[in-house]
Amino acid sequence: MTTALCPGSFDPPTNGHIDVIRRTARFADRIVVGVVGNPSKRAMFTPERRVELFDAVIAGWTDNDVHIEVIAHDGLVVDLVESHDIDVIVKGLRGTIDFENEQRMAHMNSTMVEVETLFLPTSPEVSFISSSLVREIATLGGSVDHLVPPPVRQAIGETR
Amino acid sequence: MTTALCPGSFDPPTNGHIDVIRRTARFADRIVVGVVGNPSKRAMFTPERRVELFDAVIAGWTDNDVHIEVIAHDGLVVDLVESHDIDVIVKGLRGTIDFENEQRMAHMNSTMVEVETLFLPTSPEVSFISSSLVREIATLGGSVDHLVPPPVRQAIGETR
Amino acid sequence: MTTALCPGSFDPPTNGHIDVIRRTARFADRIVVGVVGNPSKRAMFTPERRVELFDAVIAGWTDNDVHIEVIAHDGLVVDLVESHDIDVIVKGLRGTIDFENEQRMAHMNSTMVEVETLFLPTSPEVSFISSSLVREIATLGGSVDHLVPPPVRQAIGETR
Amino acid sequence: MTTALCPGSFDPPTNGHIDVIRRTARFADRIVVGVVGNPSKRAMFTPERRVELFDAVIAGWTDNDVHIEVIAHDGLVVDLVESHDIDVIVKGLRGTIDFENEQRMAHMNSTMVEVETLFLPTSPEVSFISSSLVREIATLGGSVDHLVPPPVRQAIGETR
Amino acid sequence: MTTALCPGSFDPPTNGHIDVIRRTARFADRIVVGVVGNPSKRAMFTPERRVELFDAVIAGWTDNDVHIEVIAHDGLVVDLVESHDIDVIVKGLRGTIDFENEQRMAHMNSTMVEVETLFLPTSPEVSFISSSLVREIATLGGSVDHLVPPPVRQAIGETR
Amino acid sequence: MTTALCPGSFDPPTNGHIDVIRRTARFADRIVVGVVGNPSKRAMFTPERRVELFDAVIAGWTDNDVHIEVIAHDGLVVDLVESHDIDVIVKGLRGTIDFENEQRMAHMNSTMVEVETLFLPTSPEVSFISSSLVREIATLGGSVDHLVPPPVRQAIGETR
Repeated sequence: MTTALCPGSFDPPTNGHIDVIRRTARFADRIVVGVVGNPSKRAMFTPERRVELFDAVIAGWTDNDVHIEVIAHDGLVVDLVESHDIDVIVKGLRGTIDFENEQRMAHMNSTMVEVETLFLPTSPEVSFISSSLVREIATLGGSVDHLVPPPVRQAIGETR
Repeated sequence: MTTALCPGSFDPPTNGHIDVIRRTARFADRIVVGVVGNPSKRAMFTPERRVELFDAVIAGWTDNDVHIEVIAHDGLVVDLVESHDIDVIVKGLRGTIDFENEQRMAHMNSTMVEVETLFLPTSPEVSFISSSLVREIATLGGSVDHLVPPPVRQAIGETR
Repeated sequence: MTTALCPGSFDPPTNGHIDVIRRTARFADRIVVGVVGNPSKRAMFTPERRVELFDAVIAGWTDNDVHIEVIAHDGLVVDLVESHDIDVIVKGLRGTIDFENEQRMAHMNSTMVEVETLFLPTSPEVSFISSSLVREIATLGGSVDHLVPPPVRQAIGETR
Repeated sequence: MTTALCPGSFDPPTNGHIDVIRRTARFADRIVVGVVGNPSKRAMFTPERRVELFDAVIAGWTDNDVHIEVIAHDGLVVDLVESHDIDVIVKGLRGTIDFENEQRMAHMNSTMVEVETLFLPTSPEVSFISSSLVREIATLGGSVDHLVPPPVRQAIGETR
Repeated sequence: MTTALCPGSFDPPTNGHIDVIRRTARFADRIVVGVVGNPSKRAMFTPERRVELFDAVIAGWTDNDVHIEVIAHDGLVVDLVESHDIDVIVKGLRGTIDFENEQRMAHMNSTMVEVETLFLPTSPEVSFISSSLVREIATLGGSVDHLVPPPVRQAIGETR
Repeated sequence: MTTALCPGSFDPPTNGHIDVIRRTARFADRIVVGVVGNPSKRAMFTPERRVELFDAVIAGWTDNDVHIEVIAHDGLVVDLVESHDIDVIVKGLRGTIDFENEQRMAHMNSTMVEVETLFLPTSPEVSFISSSLVREIATLGGSVDHLVPPPVRQAIGETR
């Protein structure tokens, strides 16, 4: 049995994140989605709200037979590895900037705990989506309907 | 049970390839190493000899409890996915050039067969090794002893 | 009136090339597609055949009101700029490797003739397609049906 | 007739920005320079002052026969596309980091409005200039005379 | 005699910085380590404390016969070039993001003062270390013992 | 005294190569230019002819007081390090592709002999020049006058 950790700040969860989690469900038996609060960034949603949004999205997956647990966490990602019996960390890669940043983080993490980080290239049709651009567009009144899953769409609508 | 395919031309197998296979063994239950012959490149060893070299390397792993099968293949990588019940393809990434080339290949493969390609960032201490540089150095009489595993070292020595 | 030159070896034309030409048709009034034969590469089709394939593809565009001329050329791209009254060269970019190579070529060209090179980021859903991978897959018997337009699909089928 | 939009924060306008606008004037019939205020960054000049500086620069171009309009805007770039009848967005690219960021933005924008984004590789001799480095150097008392056009040079001098 | 300047914010000094300085000592006769305070970042240590930490590290090098001077500086790097008779600036490069940022800075600096910037590729085994990740891990209570030299390790321990 | 090795195939020497050597002369006391013949590439000039061309270029430098020796070599670059008392290898970098390839080579070389490789970012105005594009343009009858030094210009003219 393989347990995968998908960590991120997910503020908000986007179709890009959903793509990575759904594809991780094809080879992992259990997935922990770790919502890491980043205190240095101005948040759109609290970590707890992001967990709720993920739960609402996953609840809508009728074809899912993988156990997915979404949790908020405000420490190091490697702490989750030990507390949740994680076998592999999975991160999506959109381009070379992501690659270099995540490669560095993966090596850093492997100096603290024995864990492999696996990279999934994001699907082409969602490869340009980022939470920060979603926040920026939403703040300026633009539509992000095609960039985020329905529950997030609704939650952003309610903030207006 | 997760079966991983590690494809490559491996001409010759290097410490970088060994690093990726050993780390794949930490999360996969079974590994198929697919030695893909590349007819357009001038080869150092035949695909069959590369398989033998891999087998010799793996035979020396006393701590390995994952089933690893090494095979020569001269068609598409996706053909192996179907014939060998592969769950995931695993490729090592050394840098951004690797990333872009492998990302393209992964998307191409996913249009032909339903399979995810996972990328492992190569360990820093072997991140600069490439088969083509090993071939070039060996051809010019330089030492590649620190770049390849012992059976490959010996096989290169015998070609001189 | 703006005349755009879309140069390339196009061996064979792919859905990625078609994407760039269709989108160029949104801002240019006239397009010259320059099929540049590359004698150093082993070709799948002759430049003349590639021109025919492009013509067949374009003939099927019922919504096109831009004049598109496809020509074979075996000299420098900048020679076409002068002989065909080109205003801008347009090239698609899939990733950073393309960017660096095309940036270099653009600057080289601008030392020989006064012309701007404009880059179009390829549409995400075709951003992983390359002629060389199409050739490789087709040679090994794989399906490239989803990667190339119908006339090219048929032409590849006839070579088997 | 082609109308191009050159958007940016331009704080301050540099010789790199001027290079892109001048070269855009070679293929566009009308240019809108959209000065987008970025409230999250500490500004050197207000958006209105940046518009004045651009106007002063352009007023000095005796060889210009393209209509160039400079406007301040504090919403989404795509809003300008609709309100100003824009055909293409034009952005300069200095390197691969620019490319990946702008590629993402271009795809994001194309999900909101039907517009193509064209990239111009910045001329080599100004390819290393950035507004943020200009601000940093100017703040620390260094000379930026060779990096910005004369009106900006003078305006920075007056802030001291 | 060659005098090299190694500038940086070094907050804190890491094994990556030490690697660059030690290797610079192989070809330079005298090294100035310029600790540049960055007022826009939240600091872990004051520039003065960083100088002390560097001095403590260097004091432990029994095999060093190069004169190394560590100084705090709060202006432009190019000011140090003139005031300290610098022949070359030396910077470590971990990846392509570093390369593009440092290339830009090097060209900017060369417009202000006549000096060459030399890049050293960081040694593979420390190529993933960054001060910002060290600060982040230390703040969240993780161990950075393997990432920084002993005096820094101790100083971080005292801040807890 | 610092002796720098500038290795390359230099087929032909370009203004980009000359830029790197002239700037190396600012901090090195002695320079060895190593013309490495690459048997796998179709050459424009023999290594011996390239040495002559370099010598002709350097003979024209009236302001040069650094000893520069140009030699042909057909083995490993690291062999030159030992035979010519080299302190540092110097390579120019045009972009991120160069960086990744040269970083790999530098690490490979450092496993064979104790030598540091220093990278110089090429000057912006020659950052797009490559020998392979020069060969291609010259072969197709284009002008490379602005890309290569006068003696190379003349030698290329004589081959027509």
